[in-house]
Amino acid sequence: MRHLLDTQTLSRDDALRILDVAEDMRDTQSREVRKLPTLRGKTIVNLFFEDSTRTRISFEAAAKRLSADVINFSAKGSSVSKGESLQDTAQTLQAMGADAVVIRHGASGAPHTLASSGWITAGVVNAGDGTHEHPTQALLDAFTIRKRRFGDDSRGRDLSGIRVTIVGDVLHSRVARSNVWLLRTLGAEVTLVAPPTLIPQDVTGWPVRIEYDLDAAIAAEPDAIMMLRIQLERMKAAYFPTEREYSRRWGLDAARLAALPDGSIVMHPGPMNRGLEISADAADSPRSTVLEQVANGVSVRMAALYLLLAGERALRQAQGPDAEEEEAP
Amino acid sequence: MRHLLDTQTLSRDDALRILDVAEDMRDTQSREVRKLPTLRGKTIVNLFFEDSTRTRISFEAAAKRLSADVINFSAKGSSVSKGESLQDTAQTLQAMGADAVVIRHGASGAPHTLASSGWITAGVVNAGDGTHEHPTQALLDAFTIRKRRFGDDSRGRDLSGIRVTIVGDVLHSRVARSNVWLLRTLGAEVTLVAPPTLIPQDVTGWPVRIEYDLDAAIAAEPDAIMMLRIQLERMKAAYFPTEREYSRRWGLDAARLAALPDGSIVMHPGPMNRGLEISADAADSPRSTVLEQVANGVSVRMAALYLLLAGERALRQAQGPDAEEEEAP
Amino acid sequence: MRHLLDTQTLSRDDALRILDVAEDMRDTQSREVRKLPTLRGKTIVNLFFEDSTRTRISFEAAAKRLSADVINFSAKGSSVSKGESLQDTAQTLQAMGADAVVIRHGASGAPHTLASSGWITAGVVNAGDGTHEHPTQALLDAFTIRKRRFGDDSRGRDLSGIRVTIVGDVLHSRVARSNVWLLRTLGAEVTLVAPPTLIPQDVTGWPVRIEYDLDAAIAAEPDAIMMLRIQLERMKAAYFPTEREYSRRWGLDAARLAALPDGSIVMHPGPMNRGLEISADAADSPRSTVLEQVANGVSVRMAALYLLLAGERALRQAQGPDAEEEEAP
Repeated sequence: MRHLLDTQTLSRDDALRILDVAEDMRDTQSREVRKLPTLRGKTIVNLFFEDSTRTRISFEAAAKRLSADVINFSAKGSSVSKGESLQDTAQTLQAMGADAVVIRHGASGAPHTLASSGWITAGVVNAGDGTHEHPTQALLDAFTIRKRRFGDDSRGRDLSGIRVTIVGDVLHSRVARSNVWLLRTLGAEVTLVAPPTLIPQDVTGWPVRIEYDLDAAIAAEPDAIMMLRIQLERMKAAYFPTEREYSRRWGLDAARLAALPDGSIVMHPGPMNRGLEISADAADSPRSTVLEQVANGVSVRMAALYLLLAGERALRQAQGPDAEEEEAP
Repeated sequence: MRHLLDTQTLSRDDALRILDVAEDMRDTQSREVRKLPTLRGKTIVNLFFEDSTRTRISFEAAAKRLSADVINFSAKGSSVSKGESLQDTAQTLQAMGADAVVIRHGASGAPHTLASSGWITAGVVNAGDGTHEHPTQALLDAFTIRKRRFGDDSRGRDLSGIRVTIVGDVLHSRVARSNVWLLRTLGAEVTLVAPPTLIPQDVTGWPVRIEYDLDAAIAAEPDAIMMLRIQLERMKAAYFPTEREYSRRWGLDAARLAALPDGSIVMHPGPMNRGLEISADAADSPRSTVLEQVANGVSVRMAALYLLLAGERALRQAQGPDAEEEEAP
Repeated sequence: MRHLLDTQTLSRDDALRILDVAEDMRDTQSREVRKLPTLRGKTIVNLFFEDSTRTRISFEAAAKRLSADVINFSAKGSSVSKGESLQDTAQTLQAMGADAVVIRHGASGAPHTLASSGWITAGVVNAGDGTHEHPTQALLDAFTIRKRRFGDDSRGRDLSGIRVTIVGDVLHSRVARSNVWLLRTLGAEVTLVAPPTLIPQDVTGWPVRIEYDLDAAIAAEPDAIMMLRIQLERMKAAYFPTEREYSRRWGLDAARLAALPDGSIVMHPGPMNRGLEISADAADSPRSTVLEQVANGVSVRMAALYLLLAGERALRQAQGPDAEEEEAP
């Protein structure tokens, strides 16, 4: 793997490889081996054009556990805000030694541009671009579903036949998009539930079923129900009668939680608006995987960085001990 | 020790243990051993809801010298400012692998809530909460007084009979509160000096003597005089005729410095307003421990992090070499 | 070397020593040895009173590759903005264990004040002060010119007889000043090209030739042409008819690029205003050393930090193995 840009073009094999390596990372971490020497001497830059402390910290923790050096580059107050182009910023970071660039950008497609332009040879990881994709989020969601379903027997398995219902503002959600593509690739059946005005116009081309009524969707007995975060600032411009109305019709409250079939799980990418799209009962119930998703996010990001950066090196190691003297001055 | 939340409930034994371990840390550092492997693989998050570069850097330096990974989380621009609850923020950080959370918060009691709620199992260190407490500041102050008094013979000793005078805005000062409780626990005698409007109403319950006249307090021959920082933005709302008036009546100037008995020391938690609560003569005199306090702060914070995080591990080490394979992948 | 404050007083021997050690650093890095243990246990503080992500990251990468701990101190939102003096800030950082302070400051002379005041013993590196100097930028520029000219045969050589033309807003440029002094010390011949109002009044004392016409300067066949960044916010106050006019008369466009003699190089300290002082043709041409400058910047900063911080230790190492037990607790 050279880059991780989206799930729409991610092959089933690559997706399963990431999930399986993430299993290894998770196992290692749970045995209290918190620091692996794998990426020592590698430099990973978090290039964030939008604030996202949560995602940035998750990548930072993942990189540090692999012993990489991490440099955080917030585009605010930087030469970027002085008008430097994405090309010059990226080439500068690579010239300083960046082996991978983890990019969060407000413009859909910016990570693709970076990876396909020929400007840099460093690996590119999309950490969220506009309303387009957020592939590591979808991968950690898939990991979490698989882990809850198959436990220690997860490796190598896909999500064939598993029914996932995604609820909320699909229109603006890169999380929803990345999940739709990855879940299809892994064989799951996806239902989207949203107010009609929050369904994208191009949804007819998506491999999903559409449902407007949350109770009907729950009656169809999903294995996982994923509540999207409502971003009030976006809602006000679009359809959105009141928060109360939204919560009543599309929020996961105690009654709907109770109506879910045995074994089905409740997911949320965080941060949650408790009382709006998800009630405290649902967020804190044993069905909730919210914190597992966060923990799995670190494992999945370790796996992605490992596959992007350690491939070549692993090859060298296999060729013999002489090729492996990184620490000798 | 599970947490370090306040000095009001900190036992004499635990306080002395922190101070004695800090002595070990200080000795080690002064022998040019700047990097200890003790907390390798541990992750410490600085969760700061208020800016405090000085305190944050001190904890960061302490953690790095113990080889821990440090993640700085400024609550500004984060999901916290989007309305995420303290519970969700803390649980998210723990799910990402935080072993300890160093929290600075504007609300008195936030660290207690975090530690006692059952939300997380990670260790919690209070790095300043509202007008409540700032326990590591009081510990570094006690360490500094003890070190100046007893030198290499400090270990195991408390501050019995030592007279400490704290001067300034006691009303708003968490530093003053933490010092009052810790100094009492360690056997010192505390006098507070302040304008009447800057003495808290509940002071009648405190184990202190109150004095309004700084010259009278100095005539009583304190062993240590601790000048609190004046925060002008707070003063304007309360009593505060002019800066000049404050400086004249409650500032430590050259004349008052000269009136202090031999061997008594001048303390300030920093940053100083030179010329307001403390003159340059006092700040830079041989009596001043201002920079020793800063240096000791790193040792005390190393000790606190060590005691919170290395206890269990130290136990495993004692059980035999097989239990200690943290670095092997 | 105790500090690196300017190039005006930097001796030829010290300048060549930095450049030669930077060659070693560059060679080491290109052999995939990205992490040297040289500065393990040392703490380097980036004390930035002005934003400069690019320079800060370059120093951070340099320090981390030498295994130093790096603490970033942005003066915004810190006690500095609450009125703490430079003296107190610097002494506090040193008390926390800073072995070197890399300072960027808006006031010309601040790094000199810090180094010569006796306030601290830590090494001071000027990372740009007002309109005064930016010595590591000049050193990386000299390194780049030398490398392009002499390749693997660069060590020990100066720039005797090499002709360098610097174009643009010399008046406000610390980059220009640092280059003028260093290039003279290394034997190069410098020509400044600028609108008359952007030439400093004291230029009569500088060891340079002045030219107002860029085409005439190019006709004189420089070995290197260095385009300075135009900062529009400064230009508006001074001479500056229009951006278009500036670009037409003092920008490096395709025609002027073509007029340069064989082997001459195009330099820019970055970030570039493409289309203003430099065209995309020039920026991306094989003559351009823009990205080499960035990469060499890390090597030069590694060399400077090494020479400031590892001298004493190297001495101890030479004295025998017993003196070298930094990692033993």
